[in-house]
Amino acid sequence: MATTSPAPATAAALEKLSSTKMFDGHNLRFRHQSATLGCAMTFSIYLPPSPASNLPVLYWLSGLTCTDENFIIKSGAQRAAAAHGIALVAPDTSPRGLNIEGEADSYDFGVGAGFYLNATNEKWKNWRMYDYIVKELPKVLSDNFEQLNTSRASIFGHSMGGHGALTVYLKNTDKYKEYDATCLIRKIKEVSAPILIDQGEDDNFLGEQLLPRNFEEACRAVGAPLILRMQPGYDHSYFFIATFIDDHIAHHAQFLKST
Amino acid sequence: MATTSPAPATAAALEKLSSTKMFDGHNLRFRHQSATLGCAMTFSIYLPPSPASNLPVLYWLSGLTCTDENFIIKSGAQRAAAAHGIALVAPDTSPRGLNIEGEADSYDFGVGAGFYLNATNEKWKNWRMYDYIVKELPKVLSDNFEQLNTSRASIFGHSMGGHGALTVYLKNTDKYKEYDATCLIRKIKEVSAPILIDQGEDDNFLGEQLLPRNFEEACRAVGAPLILRMQPGYDHSYFFIATFIDDHIAHHAQFLKST
Repeated sequence: MATTSPAPATAAALEKLSSTKMFDGHNLRFRHQSATLGCAMTFSIYLPPSPASNLPVLYWLSGLTCTDENFIIKSGAQRAAAAHGIALVAPDTSPRGLNIEGEADSYDFGVGAGFYLNATNEKWKNWRMYDYIVKELPKVLSDNFEQLNTSRASIFGHSMGGHGALTVYLKNTDKYKEYDATCLIRKIKEVSAPILIDQGEDDNFLGEQLLPRNFEEACRAVGAPLILRMQPGYDHSYFFIATFIDDHIAHHAQFLKST
Repeated sequence: MATTSPAPATAAALEKLSSTKMFDGHNLRFRHQSATLGCAMTFSIYLPPSPASNLPVLYWLSGLTCTDENFIIKSGAQRAAAAHGIALVAPDTSPRGLNIEGEADSYDFGVGAGFYLNATNEKWKNWRMYDYIVKELPKVLSDNFEQLNTSRASIFGHSMGGHGALTVYLKNTDKYKEYDATCLIRKIKEVSAPILIDQGEDDNFLGEQLLPRNFEEACRAVGAPLILRMQPGYDHSYFFIATFIDDHIAHHAQFLKST
């Protein structure tokens, strides 16, 4: 279970929670003590059947309220990952079990809502999901999975996690081969690979919150390559994600293959 | 909500609960008052993008504890259904909300455990899932979806639902193009289409409960065409189902196309 005791100096051993065969590879689920977040964290990884070494890593960042499991259970992404020989890594969306007052009062703040950033308020000092995703998790992976080459990495996601993937990518264009956010893109000198965004036109959050056209405009202003596809009739759900996940994995695969 | 009041003589109107676009078609979910079961029932249907008429119907029968939603959310079957132009229909697994004493005491008896048969005990008189699947539901579909041709039908499923599909098929070889159970197959004169079974070798229920080899032996004795595929490393989960669902839909499609 989660704990608030002092974090260990090095990554703790991984505790395997489950292993399930799928498309000739395996969904694995682990728990580990996160030094960055000061609590136990779970993550899921899909290991394709081949190759057995130098596997590229594609991180999936989930949206609000999700855990590491939603993507693994609902997206159907394992088929394309197996076909392309890419490992999928799905972390959780926030620290859990810290019992910070008010941490679970809202679906879009606190538990399940890490926003892939480092919080600046003392009360939320454990909410350092940016450092967890960018620094700790890749180290945990390379320390524990010799078949992975974490320097061949790309990142994508959905909703809060789609935006998280964009910000993580744009702050680390040397490290990841993909993705942004509207303010960051304006400062970018060069984007190493085009960004692919699918947006459902019947998405309930489109009108007020998502603003993909602002991002498109910012990309155009700095000459950053963006493929923004508006998808008529599709909403915000995993049914939408499952429909287009193959295109996204193929998109990332073309850049991961050349590295 | 569910009710135990007298069932209406004709199928009640469908209440649409949700509609979600996926692979250019739509997942639709409905509630209706079942005359057979004497309670409100939900079912899900995936309508592929084309054709707009004479669509064949492939029924999916789920396993213990499932509702109509598990298959729709987890299997990824909509991709192949869209490609083949087949409607998927996923009913619930039992009557619900009748408040029969003891109906929810066990995961494998009562609620979520209809076994696709007509119960013979008076106390369980509402448990008439065989009639619901074979008679009422096809009528509800043909009354409400003019694009469906319910005489072009096939049936498959998983676990309790895999066995249910086999029994429904073998009792109605003129009506469905697929599937059985070990006792029934011995009485069969002719099976119109081969039966395809995938069985995970790491399935927890394989050793004591599933007995596919008994079924294989019975098929051989009567000369019924069976394709039984043992799949090393796979368990009983929806990850297993998702891995092989395309093969099953393609299998059914080849017989649905010729009718």
